[in-house]
Amino acid sequence: MPQNVFPLDSAKPFTEQKILGHNRWHPEIPPAVSVNPGDVFRVDCREWFDGYIKNDDSAEDIATAPLHTVHTLSGPFRIEGAKPGDLLIVDILDVGPIPQEDDGPLAGQGWGYTGIFAKRNGGSFLTDEFPDAYKAVWGFRGDRATSRHVPGVEFTGMIHPGLMGTAPSPELLKTWNSREAALIATDPDRVPALALPPEPDGAILGGVPETDRDRVAGEGARTAPPRENGGNQDIKNLTKGTRIFYPVYVDGANFSVGDLHFSQGDGEITFCGGIEMGGFLDLHVDVIKGGMEKYNVSENAIFMPGNTAPQHSRWLSFSGTSVTLDGEQRYLDSHLAYQRACLHAIDYLSTFGWSKEQAYLLLGAAPIEGRFSGVVDIPNACATVYLPLDIFDIDIRPGSGEVPRIDPGIGAPRASVG
Amino acid sequence: MPQNVFPLDSAKPFTEQKILGHNRWHPEIPPAVSVNPGDVFRVDCREWFDGYIKNDDSAEDIATAPLHTVHTLSGPFRIEGAKPGDLLIVDILDVGPIPQEDDGPLAGQGWGYTGIFAKRNGGSFLTDEFPDAYKAVWGFRGDRATSRHVPGVEFTGMIHPGLMGTAPSPELLKTWNSREAALIATDPDRVPALALPPEPDGAILGGVPETDRDRVAGEGARTAPPRENGGNQDIKNLTKGTRIFYPVYVDGANFSVGDLHFSQGDGEITFCGGIEMGGFLDLHVDVIKGGMEKYNVSENAIFMPGNTAPQHSRWLSFSGTSVTLDGEQRYLDSHLAYQRACLHAIDYLSTFGWSKEQAYLLLGAAPIEGRFSGVVDIPNACATVYLPLDIFDIDIRPGSGEVPRIDPGIGAPRASVG
Amino acid sequence: MPQNVFPLDSAKPFTEQKILGHNRWHPEIPPAVSVNPGDVFRVDCREWFDGYIKNDDSAEDIATAPLHTVHTLSGPFRIEGAKPGDLLIVDILDVGPIPQEDDGPLAGQGWGYTGIFAKRNGGSFLTDEFPDAYKAVWGFRGDRATSRHVPGVEFTGMIHPGLMGTAPSPELLKTWNSREAALIATDPDRVPALALPPEPDGAILGGVPETDRDRVAGEGARTAPPRENGGNQDIKNLTKGTRIFYPVYVDGANFSVGDLHFSQGDGEITFCGGIEMGGFLDLHVDVIKGGMEKYNVSENAIFMPGNTAPQHSRWLSFSGTSVTLDGEQRYLDSHLAYQRACLHAIDYLSTFGWSKEQAYLLLGAAPIEGRFSGVVDIPNACATVYLPLDIFDIDIRPGSGEVPRIDPGIGAPRASVG
Amino acid sequence: MPQNVFPLDSAKPFTEQKILGHNRWHPEIPPAVSVNPGDVFRVDCREWFDGYIKNDDSAEDIATAPLHTVHTLSGPFRIEGAKPGDLLIVDILDVGPIPQEDDGPLAGQGWGYTGIFAKRNGGSFLTDEFPDAYKAVWGFRGDRATSRHVPGVEFTGMIHPGLMGTAPSPELLKTWNSREAALIATDPDRVPALALPPEPDGAILGGVPETDRDRVAGEGARTAPPRENGGNQDIKNLTKGTRIFYPVYVDGANFSVGDLHFSQGDGEITFCGGIEMGGFLDLHVDVIKGGMEKYNVSENAIFMPGNTAPQHSRWLSFSGTSVTLDGEQRYLDSHLAYQRACLHAIDYLSTFGWSKEQAYLLLGAAPIEGRFSGVVDIPNACATVYLPLDIFDIDIRPGSGEVPRIDPGIGAPRASVG
Repeated sequence: MPQNVFPLDSAKPFTEQKILGHNRWHPEIPPAVSVNPGDVFRVDCREWFDGYIKNDDSAEDIATAPLHTVHTLSGPFRIEGAKPGDLLIVDILDVGPIPQEDDGPLAGQGWGYTGIFAKRNGGSFLTDEFPDAYKAVWGFRGDRATSRHVPGVEFTGMIHPGLMGTAPSPELLKTWNSREAALIATDPDRVPALALPPEPDGAILGGVPETDRDRVAGEGARTAPPRENGGNQDIKNLTKGTRIFYPVYVDGANFSVGDLHFSQGDGEITFCGGIEMGGFLDLHVDVIKGGMEKYNVSENAIFMPGNTAPQHSRWLSFSGTSVTLDGEQRYLDSHLAYQRACLHAIDYLSTFGWSKEQAYLLLGAAPIEGRFSGVVDIPNACATVYLPLDIFDIDIRPGSGEVPRIDPGIGAPRASVG
Repeated sequence: MPQNVFPLDSAKPFTEQKILGHNRWHPEIPPAVSVNPGDVFRVDCREWFDGYIKNDDSAEDIATAPLHTVHTLSGPFRIEGAKPGDLLIVDILDVGPIPQEDDGPLAGQGWGYTGIFAKRNGGSFLTDEFPDAYKAVWGFRGDRATSRHVPGVEFTGMIHPGLMGTAPSPELLKTWNSREAALIATDPDRVPALALPPEPDGAILGGVPETDRDRVAGEGARTAPPRENGGNQDIKNLTKGTRIFYPVYVDGANFSVGDLHFSQGDGEITFCGGIEMGGFLDLHVDVIKGGMEKYNVSENAIFMPGNTAPQHSRWLSFSGTSVTLDGEQRYLDSHLAYQRACLHAIDYLSTFGWSKEQAYLLLGAAPIEGRFSGVVDIPNACATVYLPLDIFDIDIRPGSGEVPRIDPGIGAPRASVG
Repeated sequence: MPQNVFPLDSAKPFTEQKILGHNRWHPEIPPAVSVNPGDVFRVDCREWFDGYIKNDDSAEDIATAPLHTVHTLSGPFRIEGAKPGDLLIVDILDVGPIPQEDDGPLAGQGWGYTGIFAKRNGGSFLTDEFPDAYKAVWGFRGDRATSRHVPGVEFTGMIHPGLMGTAPSPELLKTWNSREAALIATDPDRVPALALPPEPDGAILGGVPETDRDRVAGEGARTAPPRENGGNQDIKNLTKGTRIFYPVYVDGANFSVGDLHFSQGDGEITFCGGIEMGGFLDLHVDVIKGGMEKYNVSENAIFMPGNTAPQHSRWLSFSGTSVTLDGEQRYLDSHLAYQRACLHAIDYLSTFGWSKEQAYLLLGAAPIEGRFSGVVDIPNACATVYLPLDIFDIDIRPGSGEVPRIDPGIGAPRASVG
Repeated sequence: MPQNVFPLDSAKPFTEQKILGHNRWHPEIPPAVSVNPGDVFRVDCREWFDGYIKNDDSAEDIATAPLHTVHTLSGPFRIEGAKPGDLLIVDILDVGPIPQEDDGPLAGQGWGYTGIFAKRNGGSFLTDEFPDAYKAVWGFRGDRATSRHVPGVEFTGMIHPGLMGTAPSPELLKTWNSREAALIATDPDRVPALALPPEPDGAILGGVPETDRDRVAGEGARTAPPRENGGNQDIKNLTKGTRIFYPVYVDGANFSVGDLHFSQGDGEITFCGGIEMGGFLDLHVDVIKGGMEKYNVSENAIFMPGNTAPQHSRWLSFSGTSVTLDGEQRYLDSHLAYQRACLHAIDYLSTFGWSKEQAYLLLGAAPIEGRFSGVVDIPNACATVYLPLDIFDIDIRPGSGEVPRIDPGIGAPRASVG
């Protein structure tokens, strides 16, 4: 085990740890830890809601989840010598649930959860069709996950961090805040919101001095969206063995990480969508001097996935196009096309006995693939979603015989309030 | 070789063949051929522009390509006994370029092409950045493709039909025409157009009787977009061994197929984007009676990809978010995010010596993967594009050493008119 | 289609074709066809028994198969400029059953066969346990195979040539004959024989002049064993897309090919073990000058498999060690260990309803993997055989529930004479 | 982390641990720990020589390695309720090097080793060609291994236990001893020995009472060979996620495990051949009542590999046949054929600058595949060895250009005494 430079005590809240992390992006959040290029080190990560979500059969916690408190990030980690214009190399040597604890109240202690956020509290990819809050708790055995709330499936986790990134420069932060404010301004009362402005309430800012705290809290960008610094990209393929290259915008790069998932389907479509958990990462870092100009990288991350992600050789796939459920034709809208593909998959799975919510939770959590198929065939984009056949206890292929049925069990808990 | 029920003579235009195909969707286009459930048969397919595009070093043909003439479809094939509400099973037993001819003026005779359509004539996924017409001709050796216009790469083709589908019912056709007309009406003069309305000029309607021809030509839906019947889905994974399930909307299903690609990247991003060619398919068909209700399939195709697509174990990936090049923040727009990811890949590749147009043509033609990564992280969707490392002659991984360079050769031909 | 330089007429025997092939290795067999480095060409191949084995429900033909007539090879192909000491590059651009014919009496016309050779006529890997002759006929649909004689399984073929190689030099031929004669001499009456000496009866020698025929027939090496020139290696991984490097021992290399298999398990354990068929290959050839010394290759082929072989992600594996069925301990004998592993697999499969002969035929034909696991752990070698789970209609995994059963159907035909 | 039921203190020798393991097979070795069907638990394992081999640049330790002391096994683990005739299910939930320690003198503390045993002390697969002792030390970074003694390669480990098995019944033990003694008797003075008889010197027998110790030590079977109980199978594919089924021969099954490898090539050809290390396993166990008769399993293990083993899509392969280096023809000897294939690979690799010993050590440690290709083509078996291209820093494919060279560095240490 490499040295743990950012340890977390599972018995204490995120704000009472020996080293304080952060939940906003701001160039003035000072490094919590310094490492050198070439170093290997361990980092603990807290699950994104810091223990608010419980291992129980109720979805009230999902319905009331405090979105202004996410994500509880570990870092920033200063990489000595990294300068703006460099590329930061981050190797994920290992990543997993909380290693010493396989039982306990904190997600990552042998279990994780997937939630469908209610339309009034965050919403989700299919929020118009699924406006209420639902939850599924998943249990881990080795690298396999099963759920009492979604019976009839078992799969190998594609364990990965949902969120990794470098600190923005002051200019970049300003750009973010200004362009997102402009979007919000187009429809300020929309539910769900178009974007999340800086929010001092609940802000955790690491070692920012008291004197600067209010200002920084008022400026710090929310961590939900991915941006030029990487951030909450929710790329399920960032598994063990992956190498990522991040642009460096501040001295030392000030890299942070969090939001671990035991598994996730492409899109993390239920919003609280992967199997959320706390855990650890073993990282190796290095620097390519002047890498941004050298490789024409002005923004966003580049990565090379590891070669040990779970293999599946048999898939069942659903397609969708950019026509709304109401029959309105949209112009080359891949986002809508993927929604329609996912809805087709959910409708299909419901014929085997799963409720539509169970199917939706499954697509959020299982290693499904979501692909851009056609993006130029005016006016319809075509998107496809691939389900690995082998994760199902029954044979879900279409055929001429009788349709097999699963027992949906207790179902997925639904919150009584929207 | 199964019996060829739809032979094409490469020396003659599409309209002068023994059996006439079609290039519009309409329920009244009568079956060209009847087959039975369980049958195995061969079908020849003409490349989508019927030979207009040449194997030369000019892009004038791409600039002036007659879009109203596409796609030259083989069919309709009536499957005896298929009824509306059934699911039609289509197995792709084999698919390839024109089998008896590896030399000649017709795409599919040992070669194919990729084009970037000009903004004034079709446009493409990145048409604002690439407004002019470009072409790349690819040569085939076995299942590998190389191009004198894009040197330094070689890859195994993921050969597939870009377009397969069943005939629409009269009601469904009416729905298509009405919803697409409504979209066009929002900006009728847009370039490129928002959608393509029925166009009698250039319509080929198979065996429609002379008396009905004008009416049918005025109603027939264009074949460019994918729709509820499958159609031009451009799913690169429909390779040999794939089984597809199509909704049946008319008696006999009236299945048609065309637009073969030797290879294509996810999205077919240059529009004329796969490696276009004519060729053949060996098909097996069957019917699941009442399959649409049985499996809750109201529209769109379901499929199970074959297990012999080319394997690649090393990838380099680029991400993008839904911010425009001008810095405008859009709300969860995966389409835009994929554009940005592709632009990042193009910028990156240009550091190795390829022109940006060469890189763009490569992404349209090579077996790149385009994935929905995060679709819920307000306001930024995250999309990723994966390039297989092993298709490049040089090592394109980022590193601390010198950047290797390829010789771009004669480059990709550009049309002198936009 | 590349030019067919070695066409075969399915209606005529191998000896009455326009170009005569051969069934013995000898340096004096003159080239049947000349090609140049860089050429692409097609070659037809006859199934190894030239049509002796029928598509019927009897195994009499297997019991009496004329072993002295094999293999009916296409070639030799002279590659201009190739010299002893060079490496010959052969690319398998495509390979498949007889392309124009999917129905007929000749294996390769839509069907193929697997046989267990009787102990008195060739024997097999498990000949002591399976001394009688059995046959299974497989039907092809696209690249999938099924058999009325082995129901309950279906798999994608790993189509490949069982036999490819270059001509031996006079010295090399002498070495072969002398070392094999020495082996035979140790037990000349053994059944099955230890090796097959030159056999003038049934020898086909291409264009050898009449005056030399008797001498060459008396010297020509049999084609059954693989040797320094490649030859009958029966490597199932030589599928489409594979590049092989052969040592060149005579001017022009004089390359020959035959013994196509629609599929085969590692080892081809029933002897007549792959799914035997005639068909075609599209080849590309080239030469590495002085390649043998350059790469320290004194003998035997090197190859790089293609990347489109069928993918399977779930396997059930059986192990064996080098102890005989009678309980005798042998010293590090991987051959015996693999026999024991195969017997374990056969015993296991028999609990699902297949006869042991059906299971044996299946292991010969399906894409099973046979691996050397431990070869140094005195005194027991450990070998393993891997069965892809997805080729079975039923779930053959061990578990606590009831064992599913297949209907063995008419079973595998057995010959009444041994 | 599941509960560690068999902890080991790295600072103490194997015989001074809280729970004592064993290094012989005997039915009377009492369970060290009891678990229940369905339990999940952690087990620590000591490297097989208990720390005798050092992380240094000398091979004296390999030359003098005390073979009578291996393998230091963890266990036996009694599974409550398991009875003779049952099948024991063992799931490898996780497996890795010593988790809390990445630096230290014990293999597994961030490093491991591969050795070529000298002919006088154990020998190896190619002992006639490599009679001296050599060593390579490998360093771990995450799941990748590199070696200062074998530069120019890096690969992802296929971490697995080399040895797992159930205790033999008294009858089975008697069978082992008697058949192995019979083999030894055929050539008692052979070097290396034909088999290893029971050896009281160095025997570790767990909780065997003092009164029985001498007798049990005189009867206990050596752990080097794999046998009916599984044992030292050295199957590189028993990675994380693998499920194994073992025959149960005694009440409680009395399962033991050890000999962890960070990686290994098929065959473990240098004898001390994988990358040897200590570490941990997380296991889940269960029982199929009466499974041996139910599934016709009389002996040996069955297994289903996990789906996260490292993927490689490009391979370079070498073949061999059963002719000795002296030119003697052997009869269908796959063991010899694999030796010849490995020698061909070693000869080939030596042209790039590696010494033959470096190449041999590499083949023992890297995830190479060894396959039975043809086993029936009288008189030559054909075996093949596959090297993944992507583990090499240079491009090792044969071609017409110049041969790239690596710097062999300090080379692999060789022992001064044989």
